[in-house]
Amino acid sequence: MKKTVHFQPDNVKIEVDKGENLLTAAAKAGIYINAYCGGDGVCGKCKVKIEEGEVIAEKANLRSADHEAGFRLACKSEIVSDLVVSIPEIKGADGKPLSRKPKTTRAISARSLESLTGDWKVDPPVEKRFLKLDPPTMDDNVPDLHRLLRAIKKGCYECAEPTFDHPQLLQELPFTLRESNWEVTVILLRGKRAEEPDRIIAVEPGNTTDRLYGLALDIGTTTVCGVLIDLNNGKVLADASAYNEQISYGEDVISRIIYSQRPGGLKTLQERVVRTINQVIETVCKTMIISPSDISYIMTAGNTIMSHLLLALDPKYLRESPYVPTCNQFPLTRAAALGVLAHPSVRLYLYPSVASYVGGDITAGVHACRMHQSPEVTLFIDIGTNGEIVIGNEDWMVCAACSAGPAFEGGGIKHGMRASGGAIENFHIHHETLEPMIVTIEQGKPRGICGSGLISIVSELLEAKVIDQQGKFDRKLDHARLRASEDGYEYVLVWGKDAMVGEDIVITEVDLDNLTRAKGAMYAGYQTLLESVGMTFADLDRVILAGNFGAYIDLERAICIGLLPDIDRDKFYYLGNGSMLGCQISLTDNNRFRERTAVSSLMTNMELSENSEFMSHYMAALFLPHTDMSLFPTVAEKLAE
Amino acid sequence: MKKTVHFQPDNVKIEVDKGENLLTAAAKAGIYINAYCGGDGVCGKCKVKIEEGEVIAEKANLRSADHEAGFRLACKSEIVSDLVVSIPEIKGADGKPLSRKPKTTRAISARSLESLTGDWKVDPPVEKRFLKLDPPTMDDNVPDLHRLLRAIKKGCYECAEPTFDHPQLLQELPFTLRESNWEVTVILLRGKRAEEPDRIIAVEPGNTTDRLYGLALDIGTTTVCGVLIDLNNGKVLADASAYNEQISYGEDVISRIIYSQRPGGLKTLQERVVRTINQVIETVCKTMIISPSDISYIMTAGNTIMSHLLLALDPKYLRESPYVPTCNQFPLTRAAALGVLAHPSVRLYLYPSVASYVGGDITAGVHACRMHQSPEVTLFIDIGTNGEIVIGNEDWMVCAACSAGPAFEGGGIKHGMRASGGAIENFHIHHETLEPMIVTIEQGKPRGICGSGLISIVSELLEAKVIDQQGKFDRKLDHARLRASEDGYEYVLVWGKDAMVGEDIVITEVDLDNLTRAKGAMYAGYQTLLESVGMTFADLDRVILAGNFGAYIDLERAICIGLLPDIDRDKFYYLGNGSMLGCQISLTDNNRFRERTAVSSLMTNMELSENSEFMSHYMAALFLPHTDMSLFPTVAEKLAE
Repeated sequence: MKKTVHFQPDNVKIEVDKGENLLTAAAKAGIYINAYCGGDGVCGKCKVKIEEGEVIAEKANLRSADHEAGFRLACKSEIVSDLVVSIPEIKGADGKPLSRKPKTTRAISARSLESLTGDWKVDPPVEKRFLKLDPPTMDDNVPDLHRLLRAIKKGCYECAEPTFDHPQLLQELPFTLRESNWEVTVILLRGKRAEEPDRIIAVEPGNTTDRLYGLALDIGTTTVCGVLIDLNNGKVLADASAYNEQISYGEDVISRIIYSQRPGGLKTLQERVVRTINQVIETVCKTMIISPSDISYIMTAGNTIMSHLLLALDPKYLRESPYVPTCNQFPLTRAAALGVLAHPSVRLYLYPSVASYVGGDITAGVHACRMHQSPEVTLFIDIGTNGEIVIGNEDWMVCAACSAGPAFEGGGIKHGMRASGGAIENFHIHHETLEPMIVTIEQGKPRGICGSGLISIVSELLEAKVIDQQGKFDRKLDHARLRASEDGYEYVLVWGKDAMVGEDIVITEVDLDNLTRAKGAMYAGYQTLLESVGMTFADLDRVILAGNFGAYIDLERAICIGLLPDIDRDKFYYLGNGSMLGCQISLTDNNRFRERTAVSSLMTNMELSENSEFMSHYMAALFLPHTDMSLFPTVAEKLAE
Repeated sequence: MKKTVHFQPDNVKIEVDKGENLLTAAAKAGIYINAYCGGDGVCGKCKVKIEEGEVIAEKANLRSADHEAGFRLACKSEIVSDLVVSIPEIKGADGKPLSRKPKTTRAISARSLESLTGDWKVDPPVEKRFLKLDPPTMDDNVPDLHRLLRAIKKGCYECAEPTFDHPQLLQELPFTLRESNWEVTVILLRGKRAEEPDRIIAVEPGNTTDRLYGLALDIGTTTVCGVLIDLNNGKVLADASAYNEQISYGEDVISRIIYSQRPGGLKTLQERVVRTINQVIETVCKTMIISPSDISYIMTAGNTIMSHLLLALDPKYLRESPYVPTCNQFPLTRAAALGVLAHPSVRLYLYPSVASYVGGDITAGVHACRMHQSPEVTLFIDIGTNGEIVIGNEDWMVCAACSAGPAFEGGGIKHGMRASGGAIENFHIHHETLEPMIVTIEQGKPRGICGSGLISIVSELLEAKVIDQQGKFDRKLDHARLRASEDGYEYVLVWGKDAMVGEDIVITEVDLDNLTRAKGAMYAGYQTLLESVGMTFADLDRVILAGNFGAYIDLERAICIGLLPDIDRDKFYYLGNGSMLGCQISLTDNNRFRERTAVSSLMTNMELSENSEFMSHYMAALFLPHTDMSLFPTVAEKLAE
């Protein structure tokens, strides 16, 4: 249920979910509140007055008098009704209240649009059918298999005869049939193409048609996520995720490839990801009290390296120029043959890749949002260490990977961290006091800075002119939080006493440089791909942000630093985990399932790593937001104020 | 080279191969020569005079005077030129020479007709292709698999893309390509149907197109035979055979089924036949100095029980009414998965069965002789413990198995044995002296009686009226060789002193009874099948005898005892090992290969075991040759003399 919070004196309203934290809501609304401790309730700075409505608040670090006067700590307040909240004045060094400069960086999220994915039918690639067979007689003593096939084909004379290829099933067939008194349920895997025969993947005694399960698996470099789906109605029954156990052998794909070249390395990595998958399978199965062997179908997507490692394909040449994968369309694989907990007949499908660094996860995302079926020219962006970009529509698609570096995942940033509890995810700076407002994930004590926090910090510092467009701190400013360091200048976000880590959490000029390179690579990628098809940003009808990052990104700020193009905000959408979404759709709808290879074939990959246009665009983008400010008109206007 | 032998005083000519033994030639020509010892040279009775021409002879047990006078022991004489040979007179008890009654039982073999099998092309279901690939560049960095497929499809835009399904091959592909400097040979397995894609089953470095091998395997209950074929030219390179190691667990299929029901029995039998196959493979590979993994294709045929056991399908229900196999069309199987010494990609194909007791060996035989493509109404017979019969032509085929019992393989016969060295294979009796002429395989000392010997003995005893049409000895005859025994009466074929076994070799009334049942079952089978399609023997255009037995059978004698129908001898042909022949043809010619399932589908099986028409025909056939002598006009005439 949505609640409206009306902040005074700024006169800003924001709609949030009931139960949302008041400090987080203020940060989203672009309302600055003094808050050093990330929302942990320790600093006691974020007190606000509830003028109307109700919050559920812990008293925490607040004087009784304040409490009685209607003050609450924003960070400890849960919004349960519509509110009017006023923010206390902040007094300057001269004792006069400081003006509250209206913020321009109010958080704007890209919209989630259900129609992006379209409807999909519950018509899965596997099917259960209950059959009552006539027992054999001397006049009708055809083989057991023939009897079964005859019953499956009954009434369909044009149907191709299903095939039945698993030796173990055939070995068990005579006994399954007789022990079940000739009443069995067959699981049919439908032919790859409409005219191809179905394949019998299991024969179960009795009528088990009410139980038909599929598993969607997103195999990420960091996390493996699984969703168990009831294929009789398309409903999600359970989900689970686990850190990819390969992480012990390298944080990113490049270090995994390096590890795979050690003796036994490939085998180890293969086993580790399978172990992770099995953990996920066991968790979802426990939730539903079913056995892993009850899952009839597994649809997975991962980047090209993850796909290679899962299939024990050596990724060696993915890393060496000219970056050649073993294959993009992965062969039919039996899950059990890989070590995955599954019935021996069950297939594991992998979304096809496009190139060494545009993998099945991207294909799945593009497939999920139906770029390949829409006339609208779309820019599809998945931001990460390897930012993947796709531009196109139903007629053509070009794609590329930009080696953005790990900044958006906290890598190469002094206090960078993944988006988990205690990560600074939102930041405001008071334009006069230069004091920060720190909001962390789960409102814990600050531990570091995650990707969305980093974007907040840089755009706020830029707008407040604490840094210049080259990402250098204004050395003329005299402020306790600004100081020289071994990494050039730095700004202290959180003092050590308020931090979980016991040391000051800072952002340095090296960090700023790394972020600039990362966003520059992404932006140069958009430009290079657009140019390759003779287009400009003006030709884009839509920008789709994939990955969870996309849902949390503050559009204005991302545009402000030059990570996203400065175009109509209404053109931005977020898809969420497109890789998982693609798997779920393919798992549930056979027609969509059959499209998946065509989708990857439609995508033409461009190699950017040795592309001279890309290099010059990249150099030009190493500025905040860009050396060519005509590309960022709204940012130019804001910075000119 | 053929040589003519002219026997006097009978004035009978016979054409034989140069090098043939003179005693054997005489026996084939129906010329009686005194000979007790089977051809071992011991009895010294078979002396003949060489009137014209030359033989290479051992002097052996012959007086010098006889030798100088031009006499030779027939059993020790090798025919090297055209001959005129005279047989010495035999004197009766009264000292007068006995007349030489002209024989009617001159051995008539069914003809071998090359056109039965038709031509087959050297166009095998596997193909090797040498490819020079362009090494990848930044402008052309498609995956290795894609590059390979592109090269295979080059110049053929309508070809379906080959599939590539073996994980190990894919895992090795990047290294195979680079280590061979992008010059490789692919082995393609052609699609099941013309429109189906080919399948890449191996990628070898360099150009190996000159080496392409296939293996034809006949998996018999007793013997496993293998033939290695050069698929580049269709030539047979090597062959080998080995006793099926399953024999330790039962001589015939029924005892194998019984053994398979013991704990671990099925597994043991499966392993034993695979071990036998591997022996055969090793032998043919050693001969050609190739490795088993160089074989690209394996085509096998066996009866339904052998096929089930090879695939570890439980044969339990094959033995229980209503005799239901697990399947007739056997699934695609990787040879290595069964334990067969082979490259992991190599498929092992099994000829489809028709029913529990009409197996892939029969399908292969019918396929080899193209019954299914001929307008001529053909009776196809494979005589054995389970005699299989097929009647039909290009429009229809019916088939059945008759449980004839093991008499033709020496089973249930007091001195019965398989057709190997020392087995009596030909027999004549002197119509007045009632003394035998014994010819053994390899002319060794007699050890027992094989199937063709048994047919000779019974027909000779019948024609000489030593037995009557009920198979009972004429008790009025007074002869040293005729005597009562625990099995009724018996005739002494070989006295113990002349035999290898150290006891008299006899034929008993129980033996005669068993043979009568065996041939009666076969004949009743022909009749029942013919009746089922409203035909009689007069409607038959051809009779094809399959199995090695067919080549050795003496038509006149087989007809005389009622094993074969009394029709125009020119209609009889022998095919040889049809099972092996079918495998060789399918292995070499892809078009023939693709027909094999259709052949089995055209055959309609009749169950005779509980069929009342069959039972009454069978009862009527328990007579020599038959109770209805109008069915055997030439035999009736002969017996009336």
